[in-house]
Amino acid sequence: MDLTNEEMLEKAKKPAEEAIKLHRFYHGKMQTVPKCCIRDISDFAIWYTPGVAEPCRQIQKNPDLVYEFTNKANAIAVVTDGTRVLGLGDIGPEAGLPVMEGKCMLFKYLGGVDAVAICLDTKDPDKFIETVKNLTPAFGGINLEDIAQPKCFYILDELRKDCKIPVWHDDQQGTAAVNLAGLYSGLKITGKKIDDIKVGFLGCGAANVATIRILISAGVNPKNVLITDSKGVIYSGRSDLDDVKYDVKRHLAQITNPDGISGGQEKVFEGADVVFCYTKPGPDVVKKEWVAKMANDAMLFACANPVPEIWPWEAKEAGARIVATGRSDFPNQINNSLIFPAVFRGTLDVRASAITDEMCIAAAKTLSDCAEKIGLHEDYLIPTMDETWVYPQVAASVGVKAIEQGLAKITMSRDELIQVAEEKIRIAQETTKMLMKEGLIKSV
Amino acid sequence: MDLTNEEMLEKAKKPAEEAIKLHRFYHGKMQTVPKCCIRDISDFAIWYTPGVAEPCRQIQKNPDLVYEFTNKANAIAVVTDGTRVLGLGDIGPEAGLPVMEGKCMLFKYLGGVDAVAICLDTKDPDKFIETVKNLTPAFGGINLEDIAQPKCFYILDELRKDCKIPVWHDDQQGTAAVNLAGLYSGLKITGKKIDDIKVGFLGCGAANVATIRILISAGVNPKNVLITDSKGVIYSGRSDLDDVKYDVKRHLAQITNPDGISGGQEKVFEGADVVFCYTKPGPDVVKKEWVAKMANDAMLFACANPVPEIWPWEAKEAGARIVATGRSDFPNQINNSLIFPAVFRGTLDVRASAITDEMCIAAAKTLSDCAEKIGLHEDYLIPTMDETWVYPQVAASVGVKAIEQGLAKITMSRDELIQVAEEKIRIAQETTKMLMKEGLIKSV
Repeated sequence: MDLTNEEMLEKAKKPAEEAIKLHRFYHGKMQTVPKCCIRDISDFAIWYTPGVAEPCRQIQKNPDLVYEFTNKANAIAVVTDGTRVLGLGDIGPEAGLPVMEGKCMLFKYLGGVDAVAICLDTKDPDKFIETVKNLTPAFGGINLEDIAQPKCFYILDELRKDCKIPVWHDDQQGTAAVNLAGLYSGLKITGKKIDDIKVGFLGCGAANVATIRILISAGVNPKNVLITDSKGVIYSGRSDLDDVKYDVKRHLAQITNPDGISGGQEKVFEGADVVFCYTKPGPDVVKKEWVAKMANDAMLFACANPVPEIWPWEAKEAGARIVATGRSDFPNQINNSLIFPAVFRGTLDVRASAITDEMCIAAAKTLSDCAEKIGLHEDYLIPTMDETWVYPQVAASVGVKAIEQGLAKITMSRDELIQVAEEKIRIAQETTKMLMKEGLIKSV
Repeated sequence: MDLTNEEMLEKAKKPAEEAIKLHRFYHGKMQTVPKCCIRDISDFAIWYTPGVAEPCRQIQKNPDLVYEFTNKANAIAVVTDGTRVLGLGDIGPEAGLPVMEGKCMLFKYLGGVDAVAICLDTKDPDKFIETVKNLTPAFGGINLEDIAQPKCFYILDELRKDCKIPVWHDDQQGTAAVNLAGLYSGLKITGKKIDDIKVGFLGCGAANVATIRILISAGVNPKNVLITDSKGVIYSGRSDLDDVKYDVKRHLAQITNPDGISGGQEKVFEGADVVFCYTKPGPDVVKKEWVAKMANDAMLFACANPVPEIWPWEAKEAGARIVATGRSDFPNQINNSLIFPAVFRGTLDVRASAITDEMCIAAAKTLSDCAEKIGLHEDYLIPTMDETWVYPQVAASVGVKAIEQGLAKITMSRDELIQVAEEKIRIAQETTKMLMKEGLIKSV
């Protein structure tokens, strides 16, 4: 907080320099490794021909056994077409691969999930969908990532309809869940009630659209919601929403903003208890005057990367009580990495057929409860990534909710779910540490 | 050799029982693991946001850098549709997954290659091709596996034409290369010359078709080749070959069998120096009388699994000097696992754009030379899998050939190639051993 803007920018260059050096040194971030014993070459008669024929035969007779005899039960595909990678835009599938490998690393290290990076060489949403459907037999779940909107909505909806395994788009559900976790904590601090609050949304992309849906599921009254896109407030009858690709916005116009308020982006701040900003990098995208018009004890989520729509200290000067951003070097980082590894851990451990909004809400609630255990305050809404005990807690809540909803093939108690998750995450982290210690991952 | 048929069958059941027990215990065979350092949570700022954006940007500017900054340079996809898995037939993509995971294990443990199992939920060859093309950005090569014929020929040809990365079908090129290695050794033992020998082929599936092509490239005179399918000898003008799906056979009829010999399967044995049998499990598919009609110092490859077309001792009683089979418990196992990990190791290490027949021939030659160093004799044509020093030798020969052919983006000397391969394979094997020793892979 004591750094000037220039110092901040200087500091922000460091990870980029280190990243080039280390990505080049290691030639990527993820590898494949056996998870079973190889005592000597004769074990290949068990793992490959002739022994392997028997598990094949049994799976053919009883397809569910694929979850017993292979790694399908712990494997997911992280799939992108590279059309909206981080804040970089449509950089293509090859250039998106470093992010996908990074995601796979977080899945394994934080969630014990074996994730494989899949970067598709097509921008056609229907070909994307068909390719992913063709890929499902070897995976227990699909994590969609960094796909341009509006096609990302269509792709997710179609795949959720057609796939036998759970499909989730992290930029939608993951972000929505961590936003909700932040909101839960903010409500605890300010004493406000979820069904009373007035909520504004600056930006109408994948993150905010999913957040709106999940917040409404969690109890926010859609009549108290106001949304803007780059053209201003979304209201029923806005003429440009007739275009077919704005289907999502048309729907939102119908269920929110009952008074048909129109006007510029500043409108969503007037009297709002919370505003979620997912627009373009700041500063000065959100003005201090706008924040000043929010309700008492206001919460502001300014989540553009790398620079939030308004600097947190400016938002606070303007009267916001709680400010969250996307940056790890500011307090209250709204960080999907606290959600997705645990959500998939819980989903896979109970073999759930889908990841529902209710499972996301359960994850958000538990994440906020964990922060509360550590000690909530204005600058501590959600835990940080090094609170590794949080992940099994969130995973277990997701698993319990799936069981409650009748979506799980495996039933366990909450305590059992925590134990299973803890053990898998422990092994993932120990494995990495051991390989480093033994020089099998070289030190840089 | 001293076991009765019944004892043999009893022994053959053991790996199946063990396989079920161990596949269930480990829930599959392969996992993903970081290959780079994670010193603490702050390293995620390098491997993920914000640092990761910089390698993404640089790859966007210079696509070749994807080989520097990601694991693409060491990653391949093992792709099947499950339509012809082992000797089990069309068992489907899920039931094929144990084999694909096993293959991925061999790729890593024997070749240091990170292979990912991809089982496609489509039987349509054009959809298969399109899906694989869409998958290529994250992979440095494609290993096709266990696809029914004749579509496997079409799929391989189309993908080799269209993909920027090397594509290989192990049941074609891998089997052909190991057959050729066996033949080279057999020629050394018997003193025969490759351009003189008369070669018969029993069966006209993926393995034999590719073997014919590669043997001809290696110097076998097509005029000395006779082929049968289940209906008998293939000759130009055989009426059933007009059907479009027998395109491959029509071509073979034109280039082989210049005298237009027709007749039953036994014909390919008459006066043949070598016969390659890839048909249906025996025994008694090949009769002793047929073998008795072969040339002096005859070599028989009876490769049906799990039981060869004729028991080796019967073939020897009938006069064959050298007999090879597909079984690990008999001498002279014709085993692709000696070829594919090394071929991909060498291909990836020089970043070759394709795997040519000449690279396969180079692999075969070196495999035979390695056996010669150990000590060739009638019961020792090619090394066994525990001769791990052989793999870097074969990999280097493949890499050198790719460089010679102008297909390689990276140039190294043979010695450098051996060193690089040795180090990668050493790390793969040490990693597995270390995880077992530390209990991170549990003992069974």
